[in-house]
Amino acid sequence: MIVISVGSASSSPIAAVFSAALLLFYFSDTTLGAPCPINGLPILRNISDLPQDSYGRPGLSHMTIAGSVLHGMKEVEIWLQTFAPGSETPIHRHSCEEVFVVLKGSGTLYLAETHGNFPGKPIEFPIFANSTLHIPINDAHQVKNTGHEDLQVLVIISRPPIKVFTYDDWFMPHTAARLKFPYYWDEQCLQESLKDEL
Amino acid sequence: MIVISVGSASSSPIAAVFSAALLLFYFSDTTLGAPCPINGLPILRNISDLPQDSYGRPGLSHMTIAGSVLHGMKEVEIWLQTFAPGSETPIHRHSCEEVFVVLKGSGTLYLAETHGNFPGKPIEFPIFANSTLHIPINDAHQVKNTGHEDLQVLVIISRPPIKVFTYDDWFMPHTAARLKFPYYWDEQCLQESLKDEL
Repeated sequence: MIVISVGSASSSPIAAVFSAALLLFYFSDTTLGAPCPINGLPILRNISDLPQDSYGRPGLSHMTIAGSVLHGMKEVEIWLQTFAPGSETPIHRHSCEEVFVVLKGSGTLYLAETHGNFPGKPIEFPIFANSTLHIPINDAHQVKNTGHEDLQVLVIISRPPIKVFTYDDWFMPHTAARLKFPYYWDEQCLQESLKDEL
Repeated sequence: MIVISVGSASSSPIAAVFSAALLLFYFSDTTLGAPCPINGLPILRNISDLPQDSYGRPGLSHMTIAGSVLHGMKEVEIWLQTFAPGSETPIHRHSCEEVFVVLKGSGTLYLAETHGNFPGKPIEFPIFANSTLHIPINDAHQVKNTGHEDLQVLVIISRPPIKVFTYDDWFMPHTAARLKFPYYWDEQCLQESLKDEL
């Protein structure tokens, strides 16, 4: 919780203006979907007002609808993601449950269900609007928009914030996969919340 | 897991036909969305093929997209629910996280955030397509279609299967709320899975 005292600790007019600006920022922060609104999750929000970003990944639009680092969720996290034609997730695995609900477009899920030292050649599943898929815990997988229009998915994960291990290819050993934590969309806010705790 | 041996334990032609029918039932069970397909959750499913039911509640269509009792999910469960105009959930509470994503229609969320001995008069939130709402753990609430068209929501809960305490009205003491477990859509399959364990 960010606690701001307005003009009480300082009599400087500049400090007072700055405090007022901070207060304004705090309110816009908690109500208008600023990047790190933890502890300020309103009961009801318009999804159109929530921030979205590509996080440097070409063709991706990611929005955290209800998140751990962003909103204080403890057990589930929900994303809305849009992939432009040709764009994809990295090949990756994570030790949480994950369910996709495909809202628009089409694409391919690549899933390696083998349990050797590396993922191996994946099985391909054609995904389409109004389909749902689940990823078995720790199976390496990748979602790609192999269609001609945007692919939009709602993603539900357990045990947030997500800890992702990424692979360069399907034959990279599991032990060589790289942990990316915090993940792209948690990075800024996890660092801010750690700073808050110091 | 249902294990069926075809015609090996019996030489009767009637038994053989019956076994073949059972086998057919088993396959349709695991692939075509029969009521209790636990341990048979395919990676990819068409939501249009999944079973839906009102469970005796007027105006409700409930579909479990990924469930604990039905599909073996351990940490999250996802429902697709449609409420006809005028229909509603009971007033209820549960000790899990819950997030709604409103896909179609409009309605009202009634939420009692008070922490006395009974829920008390609820706050009303107008909900609408493309909005999202979260229910604080253990707060009594009710969703009602107060609009003129179907209200369709995707519901995500943690800690499945859900344990619901229902209230007759907003002034019923928390201690008098009735536990409904298993909940309507888990009833048939939870009983079958308990039988399987005996």
